[in-house]
Amino acid sequence: MAHKFIKEIAPGEPIDDIYMVREPILRSTTRGDLYIAMFLCDRSGQLNGRMWQATEAIYSSLPKPGFIHIQGRSELYANKLQIIVNNISVVDAEGVCLEDFMVRTDKDTGQMFEDVKAIVGRIKHPGLKALVGEFLADTELMEKFCTAPAATTLHHNYLGGLLEHTHNMLRVAVAILPLYPRLQTDLVLGGIFLHDIGKTEELAYDMGFSYTDSGQLIGHITKGLLMINQKADGLTAKGTTIDRPTLDALGHIILSHHGQYEFGSPKLPATAEAFMVYYIDDLDAKMSQVTAAIDNEPGDSNWTGWKNALQTRLYRKRME
Amino acid sequence: MAHKFIKEIAPGEPIDDIYMVREPILRSTTRGDLYIAMFLCDRSGQLNGRMWQATEAIYSSLPKPGFIHIQGRSELYANKLQIIVNNISVVDAEGVCLEDFMVRTDKDTGQMFEDVKAIVGRIKHPGLKALVGEFLADTELMEKFCTAPAATTLHHNYLGGLLEHTHNMLRVAVAILPLYPRLQTDLVLGGIFLHDIGKTEELAYDMGFSYTDSGQLIGHITKGLLMINQKADGLTAKGTTIDRPTLDALGHIILSHHGQYEFGSPKLPATAEAFMVYYIDDLDAKMSQVTAAIDNEPGDSNWTGWKNALQTRLYRKRME
Amino acid sequence: MAHKFIKEIAPGEPIDDIYMVREPILRSTTRGDLYIAMFLCDRSGQLNGRMWQATEAIYSSLPKPGFIHIQGRSELYANKLQIIVNNISVVDAEGVCLEDFMVRTDKDTGQMFEDVKAIVGRIKHPGLKALVGEFLADTELMEKFCTAPAATTLHHNYLGGLLEHTHNMLRVAVAILPLYPRLQTDLVLGGIFLHDIGKTEELAYDMGFSYTDSGQLIGHITKGLLMINQKADGLTAKGTTIDRPTLDALGHIILSHHGQYEFGSPKLPATAEAFMVYYIDDLDAKMSQVTAAIDNEPGDSNWTGWKNALQTRLYRKRME
Amino acid sequence: MAHKFIKEIAPGEPIDDIYMVREPILRSTTRGDLYIAMFLCDRSGQLNGRMWQATEAIYSSLPKPGFIHIQGRSELYANKLQIIVNNISVVDAEGVCLEDFMVRTDKDTGQMFEDVKAIVGRIKHPGLKALVGEFLADTELMEKFCTAPAATTLHHNYLGGLLEHTHNMLRVAVAILPLYPRLQTDLVLGGIFLHDIGKTEELAYDMGFSYTDSGQLIGHITKGLLMINQKADGLTAKGTTIDRPTLDALGHIILSHHGQYEFGSPKLPATAEAFMVYYIDDLDAKMSQVTAAIDNEPGDSNWTGWKNALQTRLYRKRME
Amino acid sequence: MAHKFIKEIAPGEPIDDIYMVREPILRSTTRGDLYIAMFLCDRSGQLNGRMWQATEAIYSSLPKPGFIHIQGRSELYANKLQIIVNNISVVDAEGVCLEDFMVRTDKDTGQMFEDVKAIVGRIKHPGLKALVGEFLADTELMEKFCTAPAATTLHHNYLGGLLEHTHNMLRVAVAILPLYPRLQTDLVLGGIFLHDIGKTEELAYDMGFSYTDSGQLIGHITKGLLMINQKADGLTAKGTTIDRPTLDALGHIILSHHGQYEFGSPKLPATAEAFMVYYIDDLDAKMSQVTAAIDNEPGDSNWTGWKNALQTRLYRKRME
Amino acid sequence: MAHKFIKEIAPGEPIDDIYMVREPILRSTTRGDLYIAMFLCDRSGQLNGRMWQATEAIYSSLPKPGFIHIQGRSELYANKLQIIVNNISVVDAEGVCLEDFMVRTDKDTGQMFEDVKAIVGRIKHPGLKALVGEFLADTELMEKFCTAPAATTLHHNYLGGLLEHTHNMLRVAVAILPLYPRLQTDLVLGGIFLHDIGKTEELAYDMGFSYTDSGQLIGHITKGLLMINQKADGLTAKGTTIDRPTLDALGHIILSHHGQYEFGSPKLPATAEAFMVYYIDDLDAKMSQVTAAIDNEPGDSNWTGWKNALQTRLYRKRME
Repeated sequence: MAHKFIKEIAPGEPIDDIYMVREPILRSTTRGDLYIAMFLCDRSGQLNGRMWQATEAIYSSLPKPGFIHIQGRSELYANKLQIIVNNISVVDAEGVCLEDFMVRTDKDTGQMFEDVKAIVGRIKHPGLKALVGEFLADTELMEKFCTAPAATTLHHNYLGGLLEHTHNMLRVAVAILPLYPRLQTDLVLGGIFLHDIGKTEELAYDMGFSYTDSGQLIGHITKGLLMINQKADGLTAKGTTIDRPTLDALGHIILSHHGQYEFGSPKLPATAEAFMVYYIDDLDAKMSQVTAAIDNEPGDSNWTGWKNALQTRLYRKRME
Repeated sequence: MAHKFIKEIAPGEPIDDIYMVREPILRSTTRGDLYIAMFLCDRSGQLNGRMWQATEAIYSSLPKPGFIHIQGRSELYANKLQIIVNNISVVDAEGVCLEDFMVRTDKDTGQMFEDVKAIVGRIKHPGLKALVGEFLADTELMEKFCTAPAATTLHHNYLGGLLEHTHNMLRVAVAILPLYPRLQTDLVLGGIFLHDIGKTEELAYDMGFSYTDSGQLIGHITKGLLMINQKADGLTAKGTTIDRPTLDALGHIILSHHGQYEFGSPKLPATAEAFMVYYIDDLDAKMSQVTAAIDNEPGDSNWTGWKNALQTRLYRKRME
Repeated sequence: MAHKFIKEIAPGEPIDDIYMVREPILRSTTRGDLYIAMFLCDRSGQLNGRMWQATEAIYSSLPKPGFIHIQGRSELYANKLQIIVNNISVVDAEGVCLEDFMVRTDKDTGQMFEDVKAIVGRIKHPGLKALVGEFLADTELMEKFCTAPAATTLHHNYLGGLLEHTHNMLRVAVAILPLYPRLQTDLVLGGIFLHDIGKTEELAYDMGFSYTDSGQLIGHITKGLLMINQKADGLTAKGTTIDRPTLDALGHIILSHHGQYEFGSPKLPATAEAFMVYYIDDLDAKMSQVTAAIDNEPGDSNWTGWKNALQTRLYRKRME
Repeated sequence: MAHKFIKEIAPGEPIDDIYMVREPILRSTTRGDLYIAMFLCDRSGQLNGRMWQATEAIYSSLPKPGFIHIQGRSELYANKLQIIVNNISVVDAEGVCLEDFMVRTDKDTGQMFEDVKAIVGRIKHPGLKALVGEFLADTELMEKFCTAPAATTLHHNYLGGLLEHTHNMLRVAVAILPLYPRLQTDLVLGGIFLHDIGKTEELAYDMGFSYTDSGQLIGHITKGLLMINQKADGLTAKGTTIDRPTLDALGHIILSHHGQYEFGSPKLPATAEAFMVYYIDDLDAKMSQVTAAIDNEPGDSNWTGWKNALQTRLYRKRME
Repeated sequence: MAHKFIKEIAPGEPIDDIYMVREPILRSTTRGDLYIAMFLCDRSGQLNGRMWQATEAIYSSLPKPGFIHIQGRSELYANKLQIIVNNISVVDAEGVCLEDFMVRTDKDTGQMFEDVKAIVGRIKHPGLKALVGEFLADTELMEKFCTAPAATTLHHNYLGGLLEHTHNMLRVAVAILPLYPRLQTDLVLGGIFLHDIGKTEELAYDMGFSYTDSGQLIGHITKGLLMINQKADGLTAKGTTIDRPTLDALGHIILSHHGQYEFGSPKLPATAEAFMVYYIDDLDAKMSQVTAAIDNEPGDSNWTGWKNALQTRLYRKRME
Repeated sequence: MAHKFIKEIAPGEPIDDIYMVREPILRSTTRGDLYIAMFLCDRSGQLNGRMWQATEAIYSSLPKPGFIHIQGRSELYANKLQIIVNNISVVDAEGVCLEDFMVRTDKDTGQMFEDVKAIVGRIKHPGLKALVGEFLADTELMEKFCTAPAATTLHHNYLGGLLEHTHNMLRVAVAILPLYPRLQTDLVLGGIFLHDIGKTEELAYDMGFSYTDSGQLIGHITKGLLMINQKADGLTAKGTTIDRPTLDALGHIILSHHGQYEFGSPKLPATAEAFMVYYIDDLDAKMSQVTAAIDNEPGDSNWTGWKNALQTRLYRKRME
């Protein structure tokens, strides 16, 4: 049975479906009766939920957050839609169609990953080639790479977003590198492939998008560098050594790809290849933000609302 | 006879050639004799010149700056090379091979301009097409467009630099626009073609590179907008009207293409196309600066000196 | 019959008057009945309006925004006053007393404009005099000049504000120019007269104060420069030429009068006259803001609330 | 006998006059002979001086800095003028015409001080009037007020500069206060009169312009506040009390008159009068800087050199 | 009878206790009946209060703000607790236990003050010793010093906070001064003791924490300097003179202890001792903020909410 | 034989000693003879050196930079001392007393290292204790730790500086941690011990102080993190696992200890312990800079010259 999406619910409908529950609170009414206030959500939005005649036991059983199957009814209260919940049963995440709850890229992830492999397959430098091979051979990591979002907000903030962003950057690089023949193609392609690989550890995306503790304390930039050095150590243990200058040149691209200290780069770009990766990353992330902001604005006004990350409202009227 | 370049002069050589004279000053020695101190330069560098036994009349006849034919001799003084000038005759700029005195792009300007015309020839929007046509039909302006530098310092600071920079940006746009299908191609191509057109009026480049008074007071961004509006007024007078929203969308690209207020843009990018032009401009200008800084650094150190505009020294050792 | 101002309405009053309607929305109640939620406003404030038993047809007929004549009743709901609307008829803006809906300067605009003409009448430089004359002769533009606000928020944000601000700046200039005899009086007076002339095209003020699309994309500073150049082109066509250095010096004042890049000036002041106009503009705008903030603060506290544009609370206790 | 100014000295002249000596150093030649290197200066400039065959005793006797009478001869060395000193005798500052050594305002200080007294004589508020009277009655302080420069560099950096700047600000205030009738005239006039009074203690100007130790550690803003409170304490001791709110309002003007924290104001303007004094101070100081920069640039170029404090080169061509 | 704290009140309880009333407003219902809306608070929080059937007389009698004894009942309204007030009588602040209304340090203020006296008792420099003695002998001031908060928000924002902060800074100084033997201990200890003494006049803390008018206009930094100079003048009058360089060195510490212009320091640290006091102040204030933020966050999340003054969320999970 | 220090050389002395040679250049005189220009330096300063009658072979044999034994003579040229070199022989760094060429801490490094071991010996957390033990057991690394400078400029820029700075920070922590009992002592001590450990790889200090290529591309902060993770991996291989949250908390201290993005920290402090380490690092580094600036200023002026890193001149007159 198809999921009933939050934003499709009308007032007065019976509800019998799975939703994610967030921030449940146990409260008491004026008369002293217990009830549970909660948010019920899926990828389309969220509503207030109220379970009257609740018990401590029911409250304790709730995941915070997690999935629950509820039975109840929608109603309007103070002009806002809410859901009156009569029964709750906790549902395991395994049995849930995650895509009902988190947005996923509308591109074909299998095809994109094939493209990525084809593009980085052009790398000829033996050390870089071996290192990139180590990453591609780590199937568990590559699965995360194909599933993770690229950010919790701002741009490519959906399942598969990291792959989509990396894929697009690689395609931009392939298109423009012939115009800048002095650059070392292998470094640019390897740098783009791995520039955000630390996000597989920085972000949690099994239940909405958030940061792991480790992600917040260390950050994806430093984590990416640690992963590269661990793969290189692994290579060395197998008898293939990637020379230090090449590893440092690659590491420098990762450390500097935010381009400015205040965006968390501990180093500013200092090689031609690092500048190129920084500019392609910035261009692709911003074009994605701009396009999403224009597409997602409801109504038909010529202007979107203020977009803080872009420091502007966007004009979206097309030429006639 | 080939020009004797400044940086090829050795101590003790006789000199009989044309140089640009700059900042001549009439001074008197301890004994009261008059002499002229001056800089003598060409595109390869400059040296101090001294004319002993000078007169007020000779000094007054000198252009400040301009071209002179001198006869004299090189010598070392306090470990620095200088030129002792015996005779001076003023030379008209017409009779001078300008390329001996100003660096010129090493690309083929005729071919680049053909490419530019071919690329903007793809524009289909009738108003934009007509406006671009007005610019292409202004042969005097197009000659300046093919000759002007893109800047006095920093990037593409040589004759033909404006054309080379515009040409490369157009090629980048053609390469990556297919990856961003929501953008209006016509606006991006027209915007790039005209984004720096005001530099033809802002910069003086007949005698070294500098700013015109009008260029310093008004700036190339505003001048570009004035030129577009004058061409549009001209079109209207001929019976072809470009609608105001299209003209404003194009004008907005020009006004915002520096991307930040502190770089002289009175508006920040607020359309998808304006963001795209800003990013392509920034990428091409910076890649040009980075490549030039790496190529022009003498010696074989792994690092260049500090580059203030890039806020870094550059590492230029290539992978082995 | 005098307009019943929003802030004079008490609970429980019958309402039969014209108001501006903003952001009307068609909604349905829990039972499925349609109703319209809207804001009703005039220059004194705004209230929520509710029309129960609405129809799609009524909703579609509403201007968004625009003027409507309503019949209904005021009531308190959840401690806030709202208006229950029984009948709606759309009203043409022509038949409305605009001053009921937008604040107007309390100064005499006719007298202020006479003063302005008298002061700029002192200009002696033939080119500037002719150019200023072109503006004064453009009666349609001068009518806008006398009606437009100087801003949508911050300072002189009322009908006639642009004239009042320009008028006061000219009076300040006349008072202090004798103390700075090195400045070219004609340039200062002409520069002040025209410094914000682009606001007549940047701002819309027929239905509340807002920006035009063209105003947001191009800005009043650049528009001012375009207008000056168009008037100069017009003069040339009539046989009177204003020399380029004078036009550039005037244009530079307009481009630089915000004094800082981050306030949208593409050029910083670089002439004595540009500095003077920038300082007088800043002083008059800020004194207007300070005075308005002190006067408009309700209650009798010694301090106003925080004023973000001034980065302070204001102390308004007067000496005894 | 008139002083021979440094910038009037030609090569090969005999010298017999008083100059200020700065930074004398005792050195030895290759052969081991002692000589003294020093700067010799007056208000028109400075030259290197050399005394060969010097002794430890002569060196020890020299003031560092101070006035000396020298006998010797000018000569050119390595294309620069220097003075060979044969005899030195130390001169007491009392016997020296200070104006030969420090620039003085070319305005009439007596007349300016009369004007200042007349303008602050308009103050009617009894407390402020009494406080201003205490300052005017302190003849020793008023003498410093009429002699001190307004700054060591930047603006009004000459003897009498503090008076000239204060005088001009008061005249600006008198001219424009009628246009801003909501302001308390007494506070503005009193605030201007005393805004920089602490400079009489912050700056040393008996031997060139510099900061006192106390001036550097405490600053003229805080010193001004201390002086006002001490005068108010003195008034109280005499039986006249100035109420605390008035004293705080005046003190606030002094503390905030630099308008920005980074210019050393510990408080930002928070009263209408403080804003007015800040703007008048900024306008008068900047117009003085701009005018001086334009007047002092040698040569006839349309543009001055870069002026760091104004963040621009200045265009000084006048309209024709 | 123990005070019933706001956050302990449940719905439906009878209320008969003293609370602080804030922002009372007289309103009328739809039917025209008068009622009073107000906030009722103590140190644990605040609630809305409503007195129906109120009169103008009752409203006029209310302090704004102040203490009142109320009788009434708690109730839930729109899911929020409020208090229905039946009777009001005004209570004098004298008869109130202030600690029920304002948070107080949980340290022993008597002991802390003894410690402070013991530590500054180590000062040996005669002038500083005498000056510190003048402050200690001013019992009225010392009582304020022991009672005042250190700030209205951010850190040590409770009664006794100024003493606690000063006490802790002195202990840090005593602990680390032996590691920095080049510093003048007397200046550091005296500087810490007096660095925030002006807060006794800047802050009002008899009825919640706020700024005095004088405090906002002048600030505690400048007030501290005025107090030191007044005490020094008092000493001089008694025949003990503290030399100017020592007084300036102490004053400089107070003026510069915020370390940056934008935090209200008119001077940046320029002595070793001023740097030390600035660093100890910053360290103690920030460690207090960090600890309070971690302790006061409800729930058991590993992370606190965003703390703007610290520009971070705080991670508070302890090592296992 | 004791080394003759550069700053002890007088004009006309015979020279026969070892110096470091830097930037040697082969040039030709006017007559075409070859000579070598070079800098000769030791820890006390540097002089120009000239070897006339040089050959290509001699020039090629010179280290750039490195140690040479020279024979020659000092002389004054254009008022500056230089050394005329007659013979050159290259010297191996092994045979050189490095302390003649690089400044070394005047503290006892053996004793300081014992202190460091004793202080970190207090750590009780098993994982941290084991990790710190791994570092202490790495004798090669510990030797670098005891020898490296803490910086190339600014503070502790001498051999042993890293140890001295770490040692002093640990002592400060031991002194003040009892005053902040909520902090986890083990984390603070471990964090301080390792905060700059990456400098052993970032800095080169065998021949003057400079950055390694790897140090410039990656930086000591990231290198420190890599070292910690490698040691932890080593521990794991030996069967002792340090839990991830503890390793992240320690890593976070290292990443954030510069406290601000623009100083190269990719993360801002987000734990109480990270704040503490940041403040102690800043305090100790700045007190070291301040003290050095005061001690190293020649002459007896009350003020040092401008110190850019401290944004001030320093006042160093002590109280009397």
